Amino acid sequence: MSYMQRITATILTIGDELLIGQVIDTNGAWLGQVLNNIGVWVDKRVVVGDTKDGILGALHEATTSSDIIIITGGLGPTQDDLTKPLLNEYFGGKLILHEPSLEIIKGIFERTHRPILPVNIKQAEVPDVCTVLLNSRGTAPGMQFERDGKLYFSLPGVPFEMKGLTETYVLKAIQQKFALGEVLHRTMTTMGLGESFVAQRIADIEDRLPDSIKLAYLPGHQAVRLRLTEVLEPGASSFIDHYFHQIKERLSEILVTDQDISLPECIASLLLKYNKRVTTAESCTGGYLAAQLTALSGASAYIHGSVVSYDNAVKENLLQVPKEVLDTKGAVSEEVVIQMAKQVRILMGADYSMAVSGILGPDGGTDYKPVGTVWIAVASAHEVVTKLCHFRYDRLHNREATSLQAFNLLRKLIEAENPLPEFPG
Amino acid sequence: MSYMQRITATILTIGDELLIGQVIDTNGAWLGQVLNNIGVWVDKRVVVGDTKDGILGALHEATTSSDIIIITGGLGPTQDDLTKPLLNEYFGGKLILHEPSLEIIKGIFERTHRPILPVNIKQAEVPDVCTVLLNSRGTAPGMQFERDGKLYFSLPGVPFEMKGLTETYVLKAIQQKFALGEVLHRTMTTMGLGESFVAQRIADIEDRLPDSIKLAYLPGHQAVRLRLTEVLEPGASSFIDHYFHQIKERLSEILVTDQDISLPECIASLLLKYNKRVTTAESCTGGYLAAQLTALSGASAYIHGSVVSYDNAVKENLLQVPKEVLDTKGAVSEEVVIQMAKQVRILMGADYSMAVSGILGPDGGTDYKPVGTVWIAVASAHEVVTKLCHFRYDRLHNREATSLQAFNLLRKLIEAENPLPEFPG
Repeated sequence: MSYMQRITATILTIGDELLIGQVIDTNGAWLGQVLNNIGVWVDKRVVVGDTKDGILGALHEATTSSDIIIITGGLGPTQDDLTKPLLNEYFGGKLILHEPSLEIIKGIFERTHRPILPVNIKQAEVPDVCTVLLNSRGTAPGMQFERDGKLYFSLPGVPFEMKGLTETYVLKAIQQKFALGEVLHRTMTTMGLGESFVAQRIADIEDRLPDSIKLAYLPGHQAVRLRLTEVLEPGASSFIDHYFHQIKERLSEILVTDQDISLPECIASLLLKYNKRVTTAESCTGGYLAAQLTALSGASAYIHGSVVSYDNAVKENLLQVPKEVLDTKGAVSEEVVIQMAKQVRILMGADYSMAVSGILGPDGGTDYKPVGTVWIAVASAHEVVTKLCHFRYDRLHNREATSLQAFNLLRKLIEAENPLPEFPG
Repeated sequence: MSYMQRITATILTIGDELLIGQVIDTNGAWLGQVLNNIGVWVDKRVVVGDTKDGILGALHEATTSSDIIIITGGLGPTQDDLTKPLLNEYFGGKLILHEPSLEIIKGIFERTHRPILPVNIKQAEVPDVCTVLLNSRGTAPGMQFERDGKLYFSLPGVPFEMKGLTETYVLKAIQQKFALGEVLHRTMTTMGLGESFVAQRIADIEDRLPDSIKLAYLPGHQAVRLRLTEVLEPGASSFIDHYFHQIKERLSEILVTDQDISLPECIASLLLKYNKRVTTAESCTGGYLAAQLTALSGASAYIHGSVVSYDNAVKENLLQVPKEVLDTKGAVSEEVVIQMAKQVRILMGADYSMAVSGILGPDGGTDYKPVGTVWIAVASAHEVVTKLCHFRYDRLHNREATSLQAFNLLRKLIEAENPLPEFPG
């Protein structure tokens, strides 16, 4: 792909709880992103349990294949007797007490008014052959080792602590040690066509891509994301925007966003851009739409409130859906979501509203309205647009699909009503 | 740990999007759980990119260490030219068209009124040396191979499809092929003490655990989960409940639940047990509490509706929080959450309510109320209980911490008010 030497990394995660599936690993994805952004190629992620053989085997293997080895987990106070002594032995050091780390640990216990325990003091011990990465966010210090031109980092598994150490020390140490090429990404999201149809539509453009640019499809339930990646040697010209633009033009009618952002982020940026506010009236999604919008920092600029109207009584009392409509059409009907969308927009004094009512399953379906039947309405002061969906997933995937369809319907309405469309086409 | 031969599995995931961190791998955790439940020990999870060398290397390695190799991903219509031919070559077969799979693919395209493409027809091709696992949920058939006493499965990466094939075929094939020991788990959740303090408190019990039982800590931001795992040989007696009970007794005052369930699930089971309903009035969490409760199947029995009152105007108009209180005490205050909790309970006709108002960050903090300041109130017809929290994480972790504290406060109130406490102590 490039004549330049690729700097590669293995992310090695330690923890039985990950193998047994009680915890979902989000550290690996986050590390993959930030490493990739500075031009490091993660070529492998490995999860092993809390066993000496497993960890040593994975460490040996990573050493033969990668320039950088990042180990997360295994440093908690109750696991302390495995990973750290093992690394100490692997790199031929001896454990010594690290005073600055001990100070941090003492401070944490003082702030929480708890007595410090021997296992916590032991967390301040580090191999004398490592560079200590001071962890201001927790009790386990990070460690950096170097051998045969390779860098090794051992970081705690708690995401908040791992991220702090990575941002403060790890990325800088890597950039100092290696001459990294630039890696550029361009990502777009489409909705409305399956992966193979999108691929067919841009096949000729894909055939013309130079070796330095790679196209990947990231299919989801309702959306297909496309990502171009260009590995750029120092001084070389970039062609990624040229091809990205061609693909965008070709897919303009199904294009949702040409940024690497989620649909809620896309809605937030449109609302901020046009200085508008949104609200939601949610039956089956039960607050999930509002929660996604308010999860974003700065949400108070574009959402003031929402109503979860899971039960008909709430639809009737708070959202003025007439009892006759509920009785004759049913809660999952176009009439009901139209009234929910209209009324919540007025109730919350918003410019736009989204309303959903549906049957996400596994129970509650009928022959006439099977599980997966969802009505969506989006409203402005000028119009109401509705959509009927039939999903065939399980409860949580049906909720996710509903959410994506609702956000996309709102996006189209906002773009149609505002003078400067975000996207050409 | 056991004299019985342990049956081990490697989960091998294929996909650049996972290495680059654009997608979080949830398949591995799910597979880890279901395999563990039938007595298979996952000893390694590996993620590699869409490269022949990467996949082959990981496959060789998995073959030397595990009895079962489960491969997910790499079977999408646009990736079809890599993983399947590679497996075909690895197992020495030739690709043939599999008619039943083609029928399913045709059916999917007919239902969505789209023309079938050559790449989709190609998805129905399988190596003639595999057992085809018919995928009723998508276009990529699963494949099962066997060699030298080991089982190999290749499954699509889309979670919904992967789960369907695993439940229908994979688990049964494994149980037929291997004599599996029983693996028992007991999990409890505690809140209020850090991992090392919990460990210290039960150190003597841990020292007495037999070799067949292992204790693991699964620490989180606010909660510490403990898991006992027992590997049971056929005919052997189980001691796991004996030790689990001892630990429960010792930790009774910080025990949240002795089931392997989340806090929202714990709340749901209490509400169902006592036939009560809950509602939420959410400022900073913006619908996240309601969304977690309604994500559970059967939620309509215990939640009828909720209000997101992100802005003061909504707190004032819909939840009757007096303007003077908002002006003098501020939105993040005990007085405000008390009024929110009281009023939303009445508005929604619920037995219990939760209200939260806080500053999750990164902006909005002051010297007097820094980022991480959160007031929580829970109310019943008889009383209101409040709690002031100071979190020091980022926005999403602060939201998660708020949510856990709010659910736990509600749990205590429900248990205190109802005649039959769920837990002893």
